[in-house]
Amino acid sequence: MNNLLIEKSTFPSSKKNKLFYETLFHVANGYMGVRGSIEELPIHPGTYINGVYESVDVEHAEPLYGLTYKKDTIVNIANIQGLEIFIDNEKIDFEKCKVLNFKQTLDMKNGLVYRETSYLSPNNIEINIKTERMASYKRANIFLFSYSISTNSTKKIKVKSYVDNKVSNYVKKNDPRANHKQLAPIEAQFSDETTLHSKIKNSNIKIKIEANFFSKLEKKISYNLNSICCTYENNERIDFHKIVEISDSLRKIKKTENLDINENTLKKEQTEYLNNFWKLSRIEIGGDEKLEKALNYNLYQLQQSKSQDSFAHLGAKGLSGEGYEGHYFWDTEMYCQPFFTLTNPKESKQLLMYRYKTMKQAKDNAIRLGHKMGILFPWRTISGNECSAYFPAGTAQYHINSAIAYAIIFYYHCTNDKEFMINYGLELLLEICRLFFDLGNFNNGKFEIHEVTGPDEYTCLVSNNYYTNVSVKYDFENLISISKELNYYIDENEINNFKQAYKKIYLPKSEKLKICLQDDSFINKPIWDLEKTSDNDFPLLLNHHPLELYRYQVCKQPDVVLANYLYPQYQNNDYIENSYLYYKKITTHDSSLSSTIFSIAATRLKLGEEALSFFGNSAYLDLDNLKKNTEEGIHTANMGGCYLAIVFGFAGLEMKNDLLSLNPTIPNKWEYFSFSIIYRKTKIKFKIFKNKIEIHSENEITILLNSKKYTILGDFNETI
Amino acid sequence: MNNLLIEKSTFPSSKKNKLFYETLFHVANGYMGVRGSIEELPIHPGTYINGVYESVDVEHAEPLYGLTYKKDTIVNIANIQGLEIFIDNEKIDFEKCKVLNFKQTLDMKNGLVYRETSYLSPNNIEINIKTERMASYKRANIFLFSYSISTNSTKKIKVKSYVDNKVSNYVKKNDPRANHKQLAPIEAQFSDETTLHSKIKNSNIKIKIEANFFSKLEKKISYNLNSICCTYENNERIDFHKIVEISDSLRKIKKTENLDINENTLKKEQTEYLNNFWKLSRIEIGGDEKLEKALNYNLYQLQQSKSQDSFAHLGAKGLSGEGYEGHYFWDTEMYCQPFFTLTNPKESKQLLMYRYKTMKQAKDNAIRLGHKMGILFPWRTISGNECSAYFPAGTAQYHINSAIAYAIIFYYHCTNDKEFMINYGLELLLEICRLFFDLGNFNNGKFEIHEVTGPDEYTCLVSNNYYTNVSVKYDFENLISISKELNYYIDENEINNFKQAYKKIYLPKSEKLKICLQDDSFINKPIWDLEKTSDNDFPLLLNHHPLELYRYQVCKQPDVVLANYLYPQYQNNDYIENSYLYYKKITTHDSSLSSTIFSIAATRLKLGEEALSFFGNSAYLDLDNLKKNTEEGIHTANMGGCYLAIVFGFAGLEMKNDLLSLNPTIPNKWEYFSFSIIYRKTKIKFKIFKNKIEIHSENEITILLNSKKYTILGDFNETI
Repeated sequence: MNNLLIEKSTFPSSKKNKLFYETLFHVANGYMGVRGSIEELPIHPGTYINGVYESVDVEHAEPLYGLTYKKDTIVNIANIQGLEIFIDNEKIDFEKCKVLNFKQTLDMKNGLVYRETSYLSPNNIEINIKTERMASYKRANIFLFSYSISTNSTKKIKVKSYVDNKVSNYVKKNDPRANHKQLAPIEAQFSDETTLHSKIKNSNIKIKIEANFFSKLEKKISYNLNSICCTYENNERIDFHKIVEISDSLRKIKKTENLDINENTLKKEQTEYLNNFWKLSRIEIGGDEKLEKALNYNLYQLQQSKSQDSFAHLGAKGLSGEGYEGHYFWDTEMYCQPFFTLTNPKESKQLLMYRYKTMKQAKDNAIRLGHKMGILFPWRTISGNECSAYFPAGTAQYHINSAIAYAIIFYYHCTNDKEFMINYGLELLLEICRLFFDLGNFNNGKFEIHEVTGPDEYTCLVSNNYYTNVSVKYDFENLISISKELNYYIDENEINNFKQAYKKIYLPKSEKLKICLQDDSFINKPIWDLEKTSDNDFPLLLNHHPLELYRYQVCKQPDVVLANYLYPQYQNNDYIENSYLYYKKITTHDSSLSSTIFSIAATRLKLGEEALSFFGNSAYLDLDNLKKNTEEGIHTANMGGCYLAIVFGFAGLEMKNDLLSLNPTIPNKWEYFSFSIIYRKTKIKFKIFKNKIEIHSENEITILLNSKKYTILGDFNETI
Repeated sequence: MNNLLIEKSTFPSSKKNKLFYETLFHVANGYMGVRGSIEELPIHPGTYINGVYESVDVEHAEPLYGLTYKKDTIVNIANIQGLEIFIDNEKIDFEKCKVLNFKQTLDMKNGLVYRETSYLSPNNIEINIKTERMASYKRANIFLFSYSISTNSTKKIKVKSYVDNKVSNYVKKNDPRANHKQLAPIEAQFSDETTLHSKIKNSNIKIKIEANFFSKLEKKISYNLNSICCTYENNERIDFHKIVEISDSLRKIKKTENLDINENTLKKEQTEYLNNFWKLSRIEIGGDEKLEKALNYNLYQLQQSKSQDSFAHLGAKGLSGEGYEGHYFWDTEMYCQPFFTLTNPKESKQLLMYRYKTMKQAKDNAIRLGHKMGILFPWRTISGNECSAYFPAGTAQYHINSAIAYAIIFYYHCTNDKEFMINYGLELLLEICRLFFDLGNFNNGKFEIHEVTGPDEYTCLVSNNYYTNVSVKYDFENLISISKELNYYIDENEINNFKQAYKKIYLPKSEKLKICLQDDSFINKPIWDLEKTSDNDFPLLLNHHPLELYRYQVCKQPDVVLANYLYPQYQNNDYIENSYLYYKKITTHDSSLSSTIFSIAATRLKLGEEALSFFGNSAYLDLDNLKKNTEEGIHTANMGGCYLAIVFGFAGLEMKNDLLSLNPTIPNKWEYFSFSIIYRKTKIKFKIFKNKIEIHSENEITILLNSKKYTILGDFNETI
């Protein structure tokens, strides 16, 4: 399994590269995330807790009624990885040292990041630093560091290892997408030995950080309101480890763990946990080890990012940085959640429960926007409150409601979890459908929806966005059928309303071009000349006024192609094919959510090589910093998108009338690819070769393979 | 002519009322404006110079590419009306005095505001204050104050009269339309006796204020960097006057006047000036003196507000306050400018020259928005740079270009000023048409315009806004015809482009309802239930999120009705009538620009009483503070709108193929109404009775009267 090691052996000399590595090697367990700083040369050694935020004012240049005037921001709560090294009591300035050797490794099998670095100091002493760190999956509040520091000199070494909560968020200017503000997030209240207590100013969330240090050497602890520092001294070599426990008042501040826990126990538990994880989650790509590694890196990151409880969700940047202010978007449900639903339904349910817990805020959001019924989930949030500042490309994206509905319905189809549906899922679906019924209006016998924005933010505030409308159709249909199936009471008049809306909802299309229309006016606009657009003009949003973008047929990501992948049942195949061809030509892929969707669409059209070409470098987006902004955090939606491209794209997995259906497309370059899913409690492994398919199912299951029905139990082999 | 006196004899006790009076009685001459504070009890005694601004940062919650990051703000440059009164060296606190008597008067015949106030002090001394003030129309830099202060006691009176430039703008919270910021606008640089020099921080505009004091009494002058103070002492009575000269570096800082000028000379010049003004401008309403007075108040305010030179324009609040940050909008051209074009074409031309002088900024604005040619005038500005922060209801209102085109064309039709057209007007028109040609696109044989906002801000970013499209048609047509008429060279290909666009421009309409459609999607939206909307829900923009407003058929002011008043030649009469009836039902008149337009539309449909009903209280909007925000400044557009309603509405004035046409409608309540215009250098006076019309023309002129042609010279009488 050494294909589960991610290594970088080039030292990151520049500040930008250090920030990039800090993201790439961040260590998280869904509860907390710690950036992978080189301890002795940190740039932004942030620590984050999922769901923990500061509430900051939003200033609007023109403060219209009902805008968001407060927003959540993820908070860097502490630097828990502080390290200083002294030789003969002189502090080493590692900026002035020469790097002799460097290797940083993410070990995804054991859930560790380790690093070895050798420096030559200005006075020619060789200093070797080995560190290892992990965030315990089993004990979410526990973070472990191990250090081994040695020199080739006989001089006395001194090491200070510390935890410091007098920190702030990272400030970066000149990027409209990175509107960070300097936060002084925490105020120390009181401290006792080795424990820091603090409070986030406006959100009032309290944090407790405790640190314990272990070594054969004698330790000296110093502490104050803002830091705990442990000093070791020795000749030649110092070995020690540090266990940090973090808890917060959103959940409960308590001593959950005994901090004398054995380092090896923690590591053993971690390996066990991941052993189970990989059994279900691992993807294999025969013939492209590099891609296989990248894909599994991405899945590992999803696991690191996803909250272990329903106090929090899964951010667009996971717990790796402060990009997008740590917010949760629709991407989680549409791009990331299927991975959990198909490999670990229990974890998927937690994500849904987070949404359920924030229904009150979604109700308030709907009322703010003038709706008489229903709930509208926030476009971006941590606490559940709407935090989007520019509403045309934020709040107006009502389709987030459908993303959540989709996740609920998909979860139900995969798990048949009736209890969840009766207690939570249908209530959510009903409120979502109520909102959509209130949002739309009947016009000349059609149910229409005006003034919304689809996933493509290069056109905003439109009428009858195809994506939104078709998703709403799906929501109505499923609410009607599942509530009936489970005898869930809904007033008959209301159900009839939903039925009417479902039947009459308008799906705009061009009879002439035989394509679905992104919205009512899209096709009337001129086409942006992408061929004449110079490479450094992308992403367009950073170089063009919104009014200019909105006036053209040009897509950041294509609504219609995404809609036809998610909701193909409502469209004819020729419209799906023509739409793919049409929107392909006018899509910039300025969003990292775009290419993988085109890849899936291409596989559906049996364009295997085109699918691979769209899939292209997606898997390497963060590993190779392709968007040049991984320093702000990983791109979880793209990571999820890669999974979708494998499972729903290349494997062609679909659910057709309660039957699993497979329709594989395998690129020439691959010998085979494999993955596993859990479908209605049955674990099934698929291994797809060019000419055959191998399936292993724990229980008897019926599968449509290239539209032919097979009943499978245990091993199954079929030529394709 | 005592119908040219505006009086208030109720003392404004509350702060809000004091602010209201300060606006109502502000004194301006187009160059400078001074709020009409009660000197001894001022709330915001602001002084403004037309065109003088500070440049302030605009913070956007989501800083997208190309937004405006700087904006102009009108600056309160000084308090020039400072007054303190002492009795026996004890300063009188007028807050603690009882008001015995109060009268404040605007004398529009003589161009003065005077006030008499008697107080009873806590120790029972009666104090009488008489003040008089004027901004000289003839000497734009000169402001005159006269004071007479007396008591019924023998104790010594001391008066301090001062000018103070350490002032700031007014700060008011909680109104999204009044986004004032505290400015510390000016930094004193150096001073010499009785002269203050200062500089506005970021705009770098310099201001000079000189004050001279005159009395039979001996004066004591004290001064420092920020103030000039003159002290008089006497028993029983103090009379003095103060002449303040203000100049600025936008124009030229120089000593323009001898400040020893005789007070009476100034007043005599002022009366002469206004005598000429009223000869041309006065409106009479037989049988409704109150209305007549209000209308003339409104015209007087327009005259006070309009810049005397082309360094500045005419703000939405004139020079009366800081509302809308002192910005100039499209309203000037569409609502206010016809008054000047018809009564004082030279002053109208100055307004056009201001726009001509800011073409460079309009070019930059077009480039910012991605246009390859043409100019786009800013939605709101002082300096000529775009200052609108919320672009969907700001910059997206491209129709401002057409408003300026309309003003040029109307000016040309009324004056036949070929020289202006050849040197300036056609260049402006050509650049405006270039912008619109670049903005639109041909689609299926139609010339369409996408992603603009019409005058009705309750629907934003729409396709084919009827108002915008029809106005662009007019612009193209006039550029083509006037450039041909005047042999103005335009490349043949370009003219052909404009001809195609003119012919093919799409004017959306419903064949079924026989109405013009506000835009492509408007009619598909549900109708807002105005009957069920409670009174305190208006204006809707202060109580509803934009997304909610945009989703309904509901108008702040109706685009279509305005379009059909301005551009009736492009529409059939039944569509005009049906549109009026349709949009009437869904218009809130939340904009002060709405009712008068409906009034005009009603007269066109010969609905005289309905026209009067729409005209309704418009004339009293500021006099009676009907919008409850006159304290922030007068509503110049509404004032202009009242004039339009008289001349283009009730009188039914139109220009038809170079002929003046009159089509009067007189409400039952009126005996007659009269007004004068200058048409192609000929002064014509109209007096319209119920059954007859009297016309007096200085030169021979042909007029269409109720579609019948008459040639008129001198007096003319006709039964109607």
